[in-house]
Amino acid sequence: MSPSPSPSAADAIRVAVSAVIFSLRAHPGADKLMIPLVRRTRDPHEGMWALPGGWLDETEGLDEAAARTLAETTALTPSYLEQLYTFGDVDRSPTRVVSVVYWALLRSDLVDAQRSVAGAPENVEWFDVDALPPLAFDHNRIAGYALWRLRNKVGYSRIAAGLLPDEFTLTELRAVYESVLGRRLDPSNFRRLLEGSEALVPTESFRTGKHRPARLFRYNADAETDKRGPLD
Amino acid sequence: MSPSPSPSAADAIRVAVSAVIFSLRAHPGADKLMIPLVRRTRDPHEGMWALPGGWLDETEGLDEAAARTLAETTALTPSYLEQLYTFGDVDRSPTRVVSVVYWALLRSDLVDAQRSVAGAPENVEWFDVDALPPLAFDHNRIAGYALWRLRNKVGYSRIAAGLLPDEFTLTELRAVYESVLGRRLDPSNFRRLLEGSEALVPTESFRTGKHRPARLFRYNADAETDKRGPLD
Repeated sequence: MSPSPSPSAADAIRVAVSAVIFSLRAHPGADKLMIPLVRRTRDPHEGMWALPGGWLDETEGLDEAAARTLAETTALTPSYLEQLYTFGDVDRSPTRVVSVVYWALLRSDLVDAQRSVAGAPENVEWFDVDALPPLAFDHNRIAGYALWRLRNKVGYSRIAAGLLPDEFTLTELRAVYESVLGRRLDPSNFRRLLEGSEALVPTESFRTGKHRPARLFRYNADAETDKRGPLD
Repeated sequence: MSPSPSPSAADAIRVAVSAVIFSLRAHPGADKLMIPLVRRTRDPHEGMWALPGGWLDETEGLDEAAARTLAETTALTPSYLEQLYTFGDVDRSPTRVVSVVYWALLRSDLVDAQRSVAGAPENVEWFDVDALPPLAFDHNRIAGYALWRLRNKVGYSRIAAGLLPDEFTLTELRAVYESVLGRRLDPSNFRRLLEGSEALVPTESFRTGKHRPARLFRYNADAETDKRGPLD
C-alpha cells in the first residue's frame, strides 16, 4: 500500500552519491591540488575514470552513503564530508540517475596515513584538477563545479583546516593558496589580508631554520563553527 | 536490461522536489518575510501544511521539476529558482523519499500580479517565517535551513534584486533587510557599509515626497552574475 500516489515512471529513477576529495599531493616544483578518481570496471563507460561513489541504500542517509561509498572505492575517510550539489539532468546517464555530490578537503599526511593502513586500492589514482582526463557521465562538469566552489567560496580558515597540519606559517598557507588557485600571490598583500582577520589565530611558536624564525598560526575553530549552519 | 547492477532496495527510493519561496508581504506595522505553504489533501500528514512540491518525473530535470511542481501547487513562477540542499534522512517520511529543495526570492508586486492572473489557488496560504505551524515531514527543518541561508549567506545585491523593484532608496533597502533579519539596523552604519560596495549602483533619480529627496539605487547585475558560478 503506497501512502500517496506517485507516477510509475518515478520508480525508474535511481539515487547515487559521489564525492570530490581535494588534497595537495607532492609534485616536482610545487604541490598540486589533486582529486582521486576510480577506473570503471563495468558498463556504462567501462575503463573510463569517474568520481568515487555508488548507489544510495534504502537503509542509510545521504551523508552515510557518501562516506561508505568513498571508503569502499578509495579507502579514504575524510573527517568531514559536505554536501555540494545534486545533479539530475535527464541525459546524464543511459538510465535515469540523480547523483547527490559531496566534497571534502583532506590533508595529504592523512591520505598517506590512511593508505599505509588500508593499502592502495586498485583502480584508484590521483589526478591534477587542472589536467583531468575525459571522465564518465557528467563527472567533468561535477569536478569543475566543485573546483569553482573551492576557488571562489572557501575562506582562509577552511583551507587551512582542511589542507594543512594544525599549525603553519603564513608562507606555508600562502603556498597552499597558490596551489589551490593555480597562480602566484603577492606575499605582502597576502599577509595584510590575514592580519586582523578572525580566520587565523597566532600562536607563541615559531618555525626556525635557515630563514629568520616565522610565527606559527592555527585556524580559528570557533569562527568556523559559527559559519557552518544548522545542518552540520 | 540494466546497464549496471543496483541493489533492489534502491528501487524503493523515490525522488521529490520542494521549494521555499520568500517574499515580503504587507503586514500592519512593517512588512513580514513570509513563505507559501500548501495544505495536504492526502496521507501522510493529511490536513497539515507543507512546502509546495511534488514528485520528480522521469522525463524532466531537477530545475524543471521544481518550477513545474511550484506552479502546479501555488501558481507562482519565480524568475530564478536556486537549488538549496537535498534532504534524505531515512525516517523523514513513512516511505523512503529523497527531496531536492529549491529556494527563491519573489517580489511581492510579482506575487500579486501572478495571483491576479492565475487566481488564488485553494489550500495555499502565506505564513510568517518566524511563526510557522508544525509542518508535515521534516519541512520545519527545511524551512529553518532556508531561512538560515537567507539570513547568513545572501548579500545586499541579491536581496535587492529578489525582493525590491528595480530602483529603491537605501532606506527602502534597509527596511527590507530589517524584515529579513527580524531586527532593527543602525541607519548610518547601514549606509556606510553600502557606500563603496560594488553591490549597488547609484542612479541619477531621486525619490521625492514629504522628506528630503533620496537617491535611487539599482543592484549591480554584473557583480551578481560573476558570483553565480558555472552551473547557472
